[in-house]
Amino acid sequence: MKPRIAIDAMGGDEGVPVMLAGAALARHRHDSFKFLLVGDEPKIKAALDNHPNLRAASEILHAEDVVTGDDKVSQALRKAKTSSMGLAINAVKEGQASAAVSAGNTGALMGMSKLALRTMPGIDRPALAALLPTLKDTDVVVLDLGANTDCDAKNLAQFAVMGAAYSRIIFGFEQPKVRLLNIGTEEMKGTDELRDAAQYLRDASGLHMDFQGFIEADKINRGECDVVVCDGFSGNIALKAIEGSARFVTDLLRRAFTSSLRSKFGFLVSRPATELLRHHLDPNNHNGAVFMGLNGVVVKSHGSATSKGVANAVEVAARLVEEDITARIAQDLARVQIG
Amino acid sequence: MKPRIAIDAMGGDEGVPVMLAGAALARHRHDSFKFLLVGDEPKIKAALDNHPNLRAASEILHAEDVVTGDDKVSQALRKAKTSSMGLAINAVKEGQASAAVSAGNTGALMGMSKLALRTMPGIDRPALAALLPTLKDTDVVVLDLGANTDCDAKNLAQFAVMGAAYSRIIFGFEQPKVRLLNIGTEEMKGTDELRDAAQYLRDASGLHMDFQGFIEADKINRGECDVVVCDGFSGNIALKAIEGSARFVTDLLRRAFTSSLRSKFGFLVSRPATELLRHHLDPNNHNGAVFMGLNGVVVKSHGSATSKGVANAVEVAARLVEEDITARIAQDLARVQIG
Repeated sequence: MKPRIAIDAMGGDEGVPVMLAGAALARHRHDSFKFLLVGDEPKIKAALDNHPNLRAASEILHAEDVVTGDDKVSQALRKAKTSSMGLAINAVKEGQASAAVSAGNTGALMGMSKLALRTMPGIDRPALAALLPTLKDTDVVVLDLGANTDCDAKNLAQFAVMGAAYSRIIFGFEQPKVRLLNIGTEEMKGTDELRDAAQYLRDASGLHMDFQGFIEADKINRGECDVVVCDGFSGNIALKAIEGSARFVTDLLRRAFTSSLRSKFGFLVSRPATELLRHHLDPNNHNGAVFMGLNGVVVKSHGSATSKGVANAVEVAARLVEEDITARIAQDLARVQIG
Repeated sequence: MKPRIAIDAMGGDEGVPVMLAGAALARHRHDSFKFLLVGDEPKIKAALDNHPNLRAASEILHAEDVVTGDDKVSQALRKAKTSSMGLAINAVKEGQASAAVSAGNTGALMGMSKLALRTMPGIDRPALAALLPTLKDTDVVVLDLGANTDCDAKNLAQFAVMGAAYSRIIFGFEQPKVRLLNIGTEEMKGTDELRDAAQYLRDASGLHMDFQGFIEADKINRGECDVVVCDGFSGNIALKAIEGSARFVTDLLRRAFTSSLRSKFGFLVSRPATELLRHHLDPNNHNGAVFMGLNGVVVKSHGSATSKGVANAVEVAARLVEEDITARIAQDLARVQIG
């Protein structure tokens, strides 16, 4: 399927200019991509003057309204038929677009997507999946990252199937290594939900994954497994702890390097090395959290993503459409006996 | 009270030499410290030849047996009257020592301590508290870190009281800033347990803490608050995610710095700066996790701690005894109306 991506042009810290520059960059790399640009028509038209290549591949869908970062989910839902976010999702529902990309309010995007697209057959709850950097060349898929505070064993097993399908499509693994996030690796560790979910996955045969039991949070970034599955509360804690700790270490580093003239000099000499570090940790290289388990592809771009980050999110959305993520999930779901 | 510390001389990766070197270092810094050295008497006597200063302040209590890292809690409990760990804890119970320090098996230490010392009045469950580095000069106290997988609101409120008492004693804050770990800072975020615990703490007056609501995991190391309270599952996930992420960044850094001759040179020039980073992240400078809420002080030293780390753990134990942690917790407990 040729991807046609609906872009919520109004979302994100910078709105139209960055969202369109990102779409243009993705278009530049992929001739086959088409776009539906949703938002304030005059602003979009003006921004397209800088991107003739994107203009040739796009249609504009005017939206009166925007969902703001402060909108509660209930407020956002009232703008489902008028806002750029709502209309972008609706375009996926109506088949006018094959996927939607937004850098807007996460809670609102999740709430609207769930209501408009509904969960796919066999999935009880959608999950938010993101890519985190590892010591290897491929990223690790982590889900759920906050869509569901409490999860039962069934939800966790479904997340494993969804995460494995994501990893197969994006990194081409035939049997991604999947683990459940826990506070120890022994079989009896953790909650009943985790132990039961592990049992479901161990008992299933013919799954497109290599289920390897539990993983502890200090191993997430080692690259020893390809998919880490958790409830939304633990996932959010782990993701933010990782982000905060990485920032903490780089802050200490900056402080250390500016503490003396000698180390300032050393820093300048070794700048290519620290640039490499920055590149590896730059969230724009891992941008595009995916709402999985819906009848349609919705990708959340980070609010502060640059055009490179937005292009990344667009490419993730396109790959999931081209490789038919929904069908892949359905295949594996049929193989897990749950409940 | 003059602290007399029972040292489980057999625990930790290196056992007697490191444990005694650590005790000797603490003794060197504090003339008033006395020790009860528990373990294999011939080995302890031999090691004391290197530490005449420690010998003058110590008694030896011989133990036949040791708890190993592989022992399950049930196996360890059967060694309560014969192992160095069990006898060190028992010495606290019988008043022969005022605190115990062990670098042995955490689960066993927790299980034995709980059984021998029991929880103090008003505390339903003990918690494991540790110190994490921040961007400021003081560490943040985080608890629970794994003693309790599930916690109710009452447990969490009690942990807050215990953590605040710990922070007051170690860092001298009159009103430590206390927050509950959550996936958002708005009042309605998170689980019922978290919301109810926040309500208990907001409603209490005269507490020796400044309760400030919720904190997200990316802020733990910022130094914006002094105590972070969580259930043992979330705490373990957060702690390990922080450790893993810090190691990930420093691994990347090492890789980056050794990737070219130029950056190797830069690294050498700026070595004092990276040494400062290493110092700040070195767990030996933050060693000594405390089991809080028991009738007696038990401190867990990290298994791989150096003598400096062990000395740190001994000093933490001594401070908690000198400042009467149990009385301080009891004071605040009386002020929280729970349930």
